[in-house]
Amino acid sequence: MSINLVEAAAFVGGNIYGNKKVIINNLAKIDEAKTGDLTFLYMSSYEKFFPVTKASAILVKPGFDKSRDDITYIEVKDPNKAFSKLIIKYFSPEFSLNGIDSTAYVHPAAVIGKNVALGKNVVISAGCKIGDNVKIYHNTVLLEDVEVGESSLLFQNVSIREKCKIGKRVIIHPGTVVGSDGFGYFTDDKGVYQKIPQIGIVIIEDDVELGSNVSVDRAALGATIIKRGVKIDNLVQIAHNVIIGEDTVISSQSGVSGSTKIGNNCILAGQVGLVGHIKLENNVIVAAQSGVSKSILKPGLYFGSPAKEIKTASKLEAHIRNFPEYVDRIKKLEDQLEALKEELNNLKS
Amino acid sequence: MSINLVEAAAFVGGNIYGNKKVIINNLAKIDEAKTGDLTFLYMSSYEKFFPVTKASAILVKPGFDKSRDDITYIEVKDPNKAFSKLIIKYFSPEFSLNGIDSTAYVHPAAVIGKNVALGKNVVISAGCKIGDNVKIYHNTVLLEDVEVGESSLLFQNVSIREKCKIGKRVIIHPGTVVGSDGFGYFTDDKGVYQKIPQIGIVIIEDDVELGSNVSVDRAALGATIIKRGVKIDNLVQIAHNVIIGEDTVISSQSGVSGSTKIGNNCILAGQVGLVGHIKLENNVIVAAQSGVSKSILKPGLYFGSPAKEIKTASKLEAHIRNFPEYVDRIKKLEDQLEALKEELNNLKS
Amino acid sequence: MSINLVEAAAFVGGNIYGNKKVIINNLAKIDEAKTGDLTFLYMSSYEKFFPVTKASAILVKPGFDKSRDDITYIEVKDPNKAFSKLIIKYFSPEFSLNGIDSTAYVHPAAVIGKNVALGKNVVISAGCKIGDNVKIYHNTVLLEDVEVGESSLLFQNVSIREKCKIGKRVIIHPGTVVGSDGFGYFTDDKGVYQKIPQIGIVIIEDDVELGSNVSVDRAALGATIIKRGVKIDNLVQIAHNVIIGEDTVISSQSGVSGSTKIGNNCILAGQVGLVGHIKLENNVIVAAQSGVSKSILKPGLYFGSPAKEIKTASKLEAHIRNFPEYVDRIKKLEDQLEALKEELNNLKS
Repeated sequence: MSINLVEAAAFVGGNIYGNKKVIINNLAKIDEAKTGDLTFLYMSSYEKFFPVTKASAILVKPGFDKSRDDITYIEVKDPNKAFSKLIIKYFSPEFSLNGIDSTAYVHPAAVIGKNVALGKNVVISAGCKIGDNVKIYHNTVLLEDVEVGESSLLFQNVSIREKCKIGKRVIIHPGTVVGSDGFGYFTDDKGVYQKIPQIGIVIIEDDVELGSNVSVDRAALGATIIKRGVKIDNLVQIAHNVIIGEDTVISSQSGVSGSTKIGNNCILAGQVGLVGHIKLENNVIVAAQSGVSKSILKPGLYFGSPAKEIKTASKLEAHIRNFPEYVDRIKKLEDQLEALKEELNNLKS
Repeated sequence: MSINLVEAAAFVGGNIYGNKKVIINNLAKIDEAKTGDLTFLYMSSYEKFFPVTKASAILVKPGFDKSRDDITYIEVKDPNKAFSKLIIKYFSPEFSLNGIDSTAYVHPAAVIGKNVALGKNVVISAGCKIGDNVKIYHNTVLLEDVEVGESSLLFQNVSIREKCKIGKRVIIHPGTVVGSDGFGYFTDDKGVYQKIPQIGIVIIEDDVELGSNVSVDRAALGATIIKRGVKIDNLVQIAHNVIIGEDTVISSQSGVSGSTKIGNNCILAGQVGLVGHIKLENNVIVAAQSGVSKSILKPGLYFGSPAKEIKTASKLEAHIRNFPEYVDRIKKLEDQLEALKEELNNLKS
Repeated sequence: MSINLVEAAAFVGGNIYGNKKVIINNLAKIDEAKTGDLTFLYMSSYEKFFPVTKASAILVKPGFDKSRDDITYIEVKDPNKAFSKLIIKYFSPEFSLNGIDSTAYVHPAAVIGKNVALGKNVVISAGCKIGDNVKIYHNTVLLEDVEVGESSLLFQNVSIREKCKIGKRVIIHPGTVVGSDGFGYFTDDKGVYQKIPQIGIVIIEDDVELGSNVSVDRAALGATIIKRGVKIDNLVQIAHNVIIGEDTVISSQSGVSGSTKIGNNCILAGQVGLVGHIKLENNVIVAAQSGVSKSILKPGLYFGSPAKEIKTASKLEAHIRNFPEYVDRIKKLEDQLEALKEELNNLKS
């Protein structure tokens, strides 16, 4: 792959400073770049690598101090985004799986679209509908009546249980499970847990991505719904009857308990927990490891366990950090008060 | 499916008010119910949906205000439990897997009971014993000498390692692993970790349910034991030599460290962590995201990290929440004390 | 298996006291040992089992009170380590998988070493290189160009995505995923997330062990690197471009965010979270459930969320635990100050 720098700069709307004819054949992080690589700089903590990087070209913000003359600069408003666009343009991976492997099983009562690729030992059960251009990798299993929309990509060892609906252009990484039973029991007269059949489904809308080893439970009744454009990281738990709004992002190892509704454009950072039966308004951001125990009806940034608005939470954090100082002040007050008492007594006598 | 309301009410011991002949053909949540649906009301936060629900019938508690006359009411002591019993009666899912698929592998030295169903690419290794009426879905793999008791149900892509014993009527969801090695090493004379072979097993007793993507490690020696009736949610970690008592419930993303013993009828809420080598008495409940670092020998509700009795923990929570107030009071005390000092000095002079 | 006690004692450098000819045929924990078992004692909390254990022999520290004369003692400096060495010597499990199963698929353009074992339905894609003596269990899938070094052991239902490199003597437990896409998006001009192709790889060096249901993401660019001797427990998340230093240990359900670098000989206890783009120096230990939000550049033990040095964190913990006492002291101060004021007023009037 040889990248024409003039073309690349035009594509991202950038201006070139320096040698426009330098040969670029790869993209790399600034601390790992070699001769022939194009790199980028967007976080100040990586600026220390600029004087020593071996990159041949670099995407920088307007006004960047171009002190090295052995590097070609492309000035662009958002170097990070521009770099991502170049990755998409020049280095999008191709998933070469093609055709229906002879070891894949397709039930006669399943409907398979055009140009579908099914890997080895894939199981497509009765009643499934697989859209055009879908790729399903080896050993992935779809139980009965599952629908997968066009151009979706399911990697290996994915498990989709019966009746779940997956939209278009959905990506599901290995080991992920869609449609396992929700965690629902009642205690019978002997105090023993009896399972409540989970007879709902999971609906995953278009353009969703699920990481690896994610668990999305089917609804007790109705549907667990992951709306258009939601991105879910590895090892996340989505319980039964949860609804996640459009363009919401959930980071690794977070968990959402049953029947909770998350709005659009929310962000849950890593290892966040949400209790059940609450609601998060659109545009709510929850910081890492926070625990949300009540509905959040106002957009904003929340953290802590229980999660509070950032301003309140930061104040509490600071108070806790300064706790030793407050204890000292209490001690000092006690001493001074004791001294005052004595003085007063002396005065009286 | 058409449900006879008189029969349904009798089944759950309820009394009907209104049109007993209304046609019911489905069950639904109150906020999603349509004409022809039976719904239920048990959490006060869902009462707001009562005036607008389209359900044709509703399970309610005795004394509920039956202000709408277009709905048939079934009064019953516990609407939630009654509804669950109706799901079981009328809507229990059937898992249609039948027979032993030609692509399933059964080692000649395995013993397979009557009426066993093995899906595609299932692997049953030497020495396995599979009880009557067991269903094992596609691509699930049992290594050598695994036993599965009658009427158990294993979904797709489940991994059971050698020698583990699974009881009767056990349900295991996709992606779950039973019998992976416990996390045990010692440091050799060069300071390098050496693996301690994990030569124990896992015993899962009758009526246990394991969610999806659960990890249950085999014992270093002896057995990791999950006792009768335990219910474990998705993405839970059970380390080596853990023992979990009967009818205990463990919610999603909780983790139990090595050699810890949990009593009967305990509840771990979501994302709870327990250190190793401790003991939880029967009837201990641990709130979400708590961290238990010491044995809990008294039944009750615990929370926090480290977990404390609910009364102590709530008091601390309240104090922390009110921290800014205490800081204000300290400042005020300092000011007042300063003023007093001055006054006293004035008095002396 | 019959263990010669004299030989066993010599192997671990221990001294025998009592009947050297007692027949030993198994190893067991002290609370589970039966006649004929060798056990060991190293944690004081297990000493209560000594008077009642049925073990025939026991590994103890020098100076242990040998009050029972029906047990043979082996005195050894580190009974725990000695016991582990005996497990390795006498009870190392053999994984009997042998040969290439007829249902395993090996692409013609893959290179397979000597004495490789591939289980049922294993998929080895084009360009893969599998070293000598590798064992890969049933239904495990390697996409294109994966390398696995000699004597590595991959259990069932493991997923390795394209181009990832796995070293020698690596062990990977069931359900684990190596090379899923890193969690990387940018927001386009309409505010919708666009996926950044993750075109890097994962490098897992020699002697690494990955537990079950672990997720290791491929790098955005370059490589996510898990260095020699790292041990990773179940359900751990390793994000894109993370680098983990040699002989570091990561316990269950911990998560490491993108581009973070962990040094050598570090320990993350269970359910720890690290934010992205930070650095942990060699020999840093992070206690369970801690959250690390900044680089840690000094070896030592850290805990809390945010994580602090153990001394600072313990002091804060103690202050929080004693919060009710401080509140009482504030109230008392207020009362006393009020009393003083009154007294002073009385004095003035």
